[in-house]
Amino acid sequence: MELKVLGRSDLKKVLDMRSVVEGVKTVYGLKAKGDTEVWPLVAYEFAKQEAVMDIRSGAVLGSEQLHVLKMLNNFPHNREKGIPVFTGMLMVFDSETGLPLGVMDASYITGMRTGAAGAVGASVLARKDSTVLTVLGAGRQAMFQIAAVTVTMPNIKTVYIADELDKENEKNFAGLCRENLKTQFGIDAADVAFLPAGSLAEAVAASDVVITVTPSRKPVIMKEWVKPGTHFSCIGADMEGKEEIDPEIFRNAKVFADDKEQCIRVGEMEIPVKSGVISRDDIRGEIGQVITGQIEGRTNDDEITVFDATGLALLDLVTGKKALDGAWEKDIGLTADI
Amino acid sequence: MELKVLGRSDLKKVLDMRSVVEGVKTVYGLKAKGDTEVWPLVAYEFAKQEAVMDIRSGAVLGSEQLHVLKMLNNFPHNREKGIPVFTGMLMVFDSETGLPLGVMDASYITGMRTGAAGAVGASVLARKDSTVLTVLGAGRQAMFQIAAVTVTMPNIKTVYIADELDKENEKNFAGLCRENLKTQFGIDAADVAFLPAGSLAEAVAASDVVITVTPSRKPVIMKEWVKPGTHFSCIGADMEGKEEIDPEIFRNAKVFADDKEQCIRVGEMEIPVKSGVISRDDIRGEIGQVITGQIEGRTNDDEITVFDATGLALLDLVTGKKALDGAWEKDIGLTADI
Repeated sequence: MELKVLGRSDLKKVLDMRSVVEGVKTVYGLKAKGDTEVWPLVAYEFAKQEAVMDIRSGAVLGSEQLHVLKMLNNFPHNREKGIPVFTGMLMVFDSETGLPLGVMDASYITGMRTGAAGAVGASVLARKDSTVLTVLGAGRQAMFQIAAVTVTMPNIKTVYIADELDKENEKNFAGLCRENLKTQFGIDAADVAFLPAGSLAEAVAASDVVITVTPSRKPVIMKEWVKPGTHFSCIGADMEGKEEIDPEIFRNAKVFADDKEQCIRVGEMEIPVKSGVISRDDIRGEIGQVITGQIEGRTNDDEITVFDATGLALLDLVTGKKALDGAWEKDIGLTADI
Repeated sequence: MELKVLGRSDLKKVLDMRSVVEGVKTVYGLKAKGDTEVWPLVAYEFAKQEAVMDIRSGAVLGSEQLHVLKMLNNFPHNREKGIPVFTGMLMVFDSETGLPLGVMDASYITGMRTGAAGAVGASVLARKDSTVLTVLGAGRQAMFQIAAVTVTMPNIKTVYIADELDKENEKNFAGLCRENLKTQFGIDAADVAFLPAGSLAEAVAASDVVITVTPSRKPVIMKEWVKPGTHFSCIGADMEGKEEIDPEIFRNAKVFADDKEQCIRVGEMEIPVKSGVISRDDIRGEIGQVITGQIEGRTNDDEITVFDATGLALLDLVTGKKALDGAWEKDIGLTADI
């Protein structure tokens, strides 16, 4: 049996954001059609190391039959040691035979598919004439979000970057965006302005689309800043207690999830639901149902829409499979006899 | 980051049964001391393929800090396609940093550590003067059991092989045992007689140790055949409804588990406990507690002892780590830059 082994530098050679976005959109649709399985999440906190790990797994069982397993480790104290904080491995299996197809670095895959998720939510739910984006967060994940929006929504011509904890970083990040898109993703964004938000309130008020990617545990974006017709893709909140936007934004908004139960448990909507600002029944459904046309998304230019994404192994699966296909085609990565 | 990748043929070069037995014994002891974590099992049945997968994971958090993740796939219809039925991958991580250390074929590791588990149970609980072993089952796993007992209990001089569904296979298997021990495990068993059981009742009656490794769902070994002082290592039963020995054997036996709760749920003791032949309180404890001296094992030559082993990711962890150490030392396997 031959097994592909792909490191981060291999993955950069074989994955392009456009095809990852397509894959993520497709797999959301498969989920809505019932052609996928999401298996229980296993998570653990290493007390001594002040670190966490989680294991996500699942399958697509449509015309392609594949299953996937991902271990992601988050060890914040690695920073002091000069080694990567987020690491992990992804394994893809053929569900017709159970045979392993490949193993690869999980952190780059996670970045790519999470960027794609935010952009898919925005492209499906935002107003078609959206031109201004604010990204809240200027860390590891923000660049993936910007890359994905840039290839998915070509009408976006202004991107505000906001880092409420480090205004210096906000400026640096914005200044380097165009160059980083080019070098890291091969994306030409010569006609897009990347600007430090300065005042977050003003940036949000000027925006058609807002993507949040911070680990915040209290609301950072307030309802009174938000103009009618704004879309939110909420990416950062992925465990109990995390939230980035004012729960009041959810009142009267059209709210969609990547996975409804998981979002109610650990997503941005956790606190609005728990505090009664919205009820479970106010959640319109899952993004995949909008993609397949099973339910309506946005119906007019004044609605506030919210897409809450907590992450699914299915996204890793489809992204990992694309990487493997590309690696075989281009003869990249190691091939192990297993 | 460097990642070792080990296939089955690499594993054969770096793992010897004696050191796997030592590792399994050590990790059972660590579990008894509370230095381990066993995380929830994730399992799934692929309906169309009539196949199953399970994901086991856990950690040792003693002087070594490691965590592990294993996906095992069992696709019976692969036999018709001429490809392996049991496949899977094991990943080992450093729990000080979260960094991946290695990935490897899981089926060979599983065979080795399961063989070691049966033999550790027997060497700890059987009479010291045991000379005769019956192995019920002549499939994939039986050879690992025999190899492990041979290196662990040198007084065993007679081994009966029983295959109640295929007496021809029983004869062939017994005839090839000595040679297979030599070629597959490098074990010299020139002074051991390997015999087809013929009558299972007679073989069991003559045996000091019985190891069961079949997927049976009804008892195959009856209480009336068993002489005082016999030890059973029950390996085959690892999911609800499986059983290999007469529940009556449990009455008045001294019963030990690899993991008490898991054994009550899915092990050989599931049915005796459910049917009330024994109660939960009749289970003496875990094998690791006997190894560390926290509880007593066998106290006289007339007791029947039973060790019920359902499998723990911790055994895969310690075996996988030994394989990685050996591979670095001997420069075996691929090294990927991840």
